[in-house]
Amino acid sequence: MEMIHLDPPAELAMPLGEAMFTQRAIRRLDPDRPIDDAALKLILDAASKAPNGANLQATRFLVIRDRGRIRAFGALYHEAWWAKRADAYGWEPDQELPADSPYRMAAQLANEMVDAPAVVLAFSPGPPALTAGSVFPAVQNLMLAARAIGIGSVLTSLHPVVMDRLHEMFEVPTEFGFHACVPLGYPRGRFGRTRRRPSAGTTFIDRWGTPPRWASTDGGS
Amino acid sequence: MEMIHLDPPAELAMPLGEAMFTQRAIRRLDPDRPIDDAALKLILDAASKAPNGANLQATRFLVIRDRGRIRAFGALYHEAWWAKRADAYGWEPDQELPADSPYRMAAQLANEMVDAPAVVLAFSPGPPALTAGSVFPAVQNLMLAARAIGIGSVLTSLHPVVMDRLHEMFEVPTEFGFHACVPLGYPRGRFGRTRRRPSAGTTFIDRWGTPPRWASTDGGS
Repeated sequence: MEMIHLDPPAELAMPLGEAMFTQRAIRRLDPDRPIDDAALKLILDAASKAPNGANLQATRFLVIRDRGRIRAFGALYHEAWWAKRADAYGWEPDQELPADSPYRMAAQLANEMVDAPAVVLAFSPGPPALTAGSVFPAVQNLMLAARAIGIGSVLTSLHPVVMDRLHEMFEVPTEFGFHACVPLGYPRGRFGRTRRRPSAGTTFIDRWGTPPRWASTDGGS
Repeated sequence: MEMIHLDPPAELAMPLGEAMFTQRAIRRLDPDRPIDDAALKLILDAASKAPNGANLQATRFLVIRDRGRIRAFGALYHEAWWAKRADAYGWEPDQELPADSPYRMAAQLANEMVDAPAVVLAFSPGPPALTAGSVFPAVQNLMLAARAIGIGSVLTSLHPVVMDRLHEMFEVPTEFGFHACVPLGYPRGRFGRTRRRPSAGTTFIDRWGTPPRWASTDGGS
């Protein structure tokens, strides 16, 4: 398939700043409102425009839309989510989390992935450590474009324990490594501003430890 | 430093689609036009808004602005660029490349990095394979925001042969792994549309190998 120029889609008219500054992780998806072809194409075209090493464009997206396949994948996701917490904290699958646990929303998504309207999985050939830089810019484009047309998403990963079954389930060639799982759906909640460290807290100038000049005037407290 | 809400900056008013669809790799940077504090803060604030694992926001950006340090880094970058080509193709440093080589522009950047107006290096603690997904969405935000205010950038990496010296040169703690190098500058050339595979050539539906329905109508040839 040859490479082509595409004009910027009129649907992606949201100001860049608004898309970035309101790109909240959306984990509560409306199971009854599907993502149509036009929306999917739009956000995957946006993904394809991202920078990538030597313009090889080796990233491939597998979109799960079939209800039966999403249910099967959702069960795998649930297992992988709890396997990660077993590794990290020794938790048991489906154990009750405290009301103030920062993981409650993510645990809810692990339960609800079976009902996601669509799920995008990103793969690329070659060692993940060397190819991640050619995958995640595209994943971020995809999520920003989704935001711009009102579709929520959240960037998630999968525990290695399910990886062989994932490849089997969708007939993914073994040389294609998994990078990211992004469920898509219209939000049950709302988009909103995110809380983040200001750049004065993430940036050094000229040597490690030297804050930028703007640190003194920008929320540095 | 506490986390804060930020309003979308008025300077990032470019439509999302235009920013993404004209985010060309800019390797020819104007050495005589510096990047001011306001522009740097804007694009680093945009970077800080990206999704990242558990909202830990562990990515740190080292911005090189001092001319002497950029020159020292540029020499390191030049060595690293040719080391990668020695590994891949057995090339000698600074050897002449054929006029039609796809690497000519990148080789020119390896020569000109010493004159870049600014260079952003991205680091995060922990194994790069596990943390890349929390770094590159921010790097992509940074480059899109730069594009929106007329600043060119290109996503590059560094050969491991220079890594210890990079950490020494900028006093980077050893636990912070390097992910990406993004030179910034106003373009000597122009922004323009990128040529990419259409999403019909990067996407499968429900199982590997099944193209989307829109493949039959969208540049599939």
